[in-house]
Amino acid sequence: MKIIEDARAPNPRRVRIFLAEKEIEIPFEQIEIMKGDHKTPDFTAKNPFQRVPILELESGTIISESVAICRYFEELEPDPPLMGKDPLDKARVEMWNRRMELNLLFHVAQVFRHTHPAMTDFEVPQISEWGEANRPKVLETLIFLDQELESRAFIAGKRFSIADITAKVAIDFLKPPKIERPEKLKHLARWYDEVSSRPSMKMPQKDQDK
Amino acid sequence: MKIIEDARAPNPRRVRIFLAEKEIEIPFEQIEIMKGDHKTPDFTAKNPFQRVPILELESGTIISESVAICRYFEELEPDPPLMGKDPLDKARVEMWNRRMELNLLFHVAQVFRHTHPAMTDFEVPQISEWGEANRPKVLETLIFLDQELESRAFIAGKRFSIADITAKVAIDFLKPPKIERPEKLKHLARWYDEVSSRPSMKMPQKDQDK
Repeated sequence: MKIIEDARAPNPRRVRIFLAEKEIEIPFEQIEIMKGDHKTPDFTAKNPFQRVPILELESGTIISESVAICRYFEELEPDPPLMGKDPLDKARVEMWNRRMELNLLFHVAQVFRHTHPAMTDFEVPQISEWGEANRPKVLETLIFLDQELESRAFIAGKRFSIADITAKVAIDFLKPPKIERPEKLKHLARWYDEVSSRPSMKMPQKDQDK
Repeated sequence: MKIIEDARAPNPRRVRIFLAEKEIEIPFEQIEIMKGDHKTPDFTAKNPFQRVPILELESGTIISESVAICRYFEELEPDPPLMGKDPLDKARVEMWNRRMELNLLFHVAQVFRHTHPAMTDFEVPQISEWGEANRPKVLETLIFLDQELESRAFIAGKRFSIADITAKVAIDFLKPPKIERPEKLKHLARWYDEVSSRPSMKMPQKDQDK
């Protein structure tokens, strides 16, 4: 069993953090998106949608989509629960994880993909007007999150969950498209600092990251 | 317990089909997005992201996000399984459902939202270049799906699942943005006809639908 990923991309990071929180160790194989490794015939046969990460099982079965990979490990190793414990809790965590995907990570990614010079060859056509239209939506969600985090420890409730992972990865991803997290958002800052101090959040070693 | 929705929108339809497949009956309350009902203070208090559908429990707890609502009912009533049976099956269904969301429903929705005159007041700014850029991506996914469906009955495998619901709703949603499903995609047509004939796919009665 192994995960094929590019350690610098945000979605692989979600899975790495998820596995670290569960203390599951599996081998990671690196490919380089910027070199087009995800568009080779070999990788395309594994994931026709040419995205990382993918999980490759001993049987040869491939699971793509970060949250689907997380689901697999959540079902195999339910403790600690990162996707909820009972029906309502699972629904609540899924709601918040999707809110963080659709209203935060997605908008940040669109700003990055449609405005950053490094993405010109990858996002075709690159439409800067669309990229810029996503910028204020990022800020709206950050302000909303700040209000929510006034009254609870984590995004989906009292317990750390996959929704915190998605939000943390999205906020760290503000840097390449030069979006600022406003300092005045104190509750968001408290949450961000707490979550960032978790051992699972450590970035991969430099030798993997060049 | 009730669901608040607009029966003409695609995401509420996903939940309605899901519940019909499980033969779960709960009351539906209609609001009208085109009249801005989802932006009232009352609805915004229930879902700050102003989207339908939402599930309102007796306790007052609200679950938004279609797939989170489906998850709640899947956990309460696992039969028939629409989100997978064991860890690998659950991961596979989640992978395919997300592929259908990200590579099909999403692109169809972007074409609709950014090119349809009815959406001018709802999608601000409406960027037709972005809408048009999504059009060929819809076609790519349909061609890919046709190849996949040559060798299996349903999108995620032998069993009908939430991934089929998402794909069916996305394909029916091709109509408003005038995207054609190519007739030559025979395996996709076979799947589409089979899935469309399921009783769960019946559209709501006219009196709910005006």
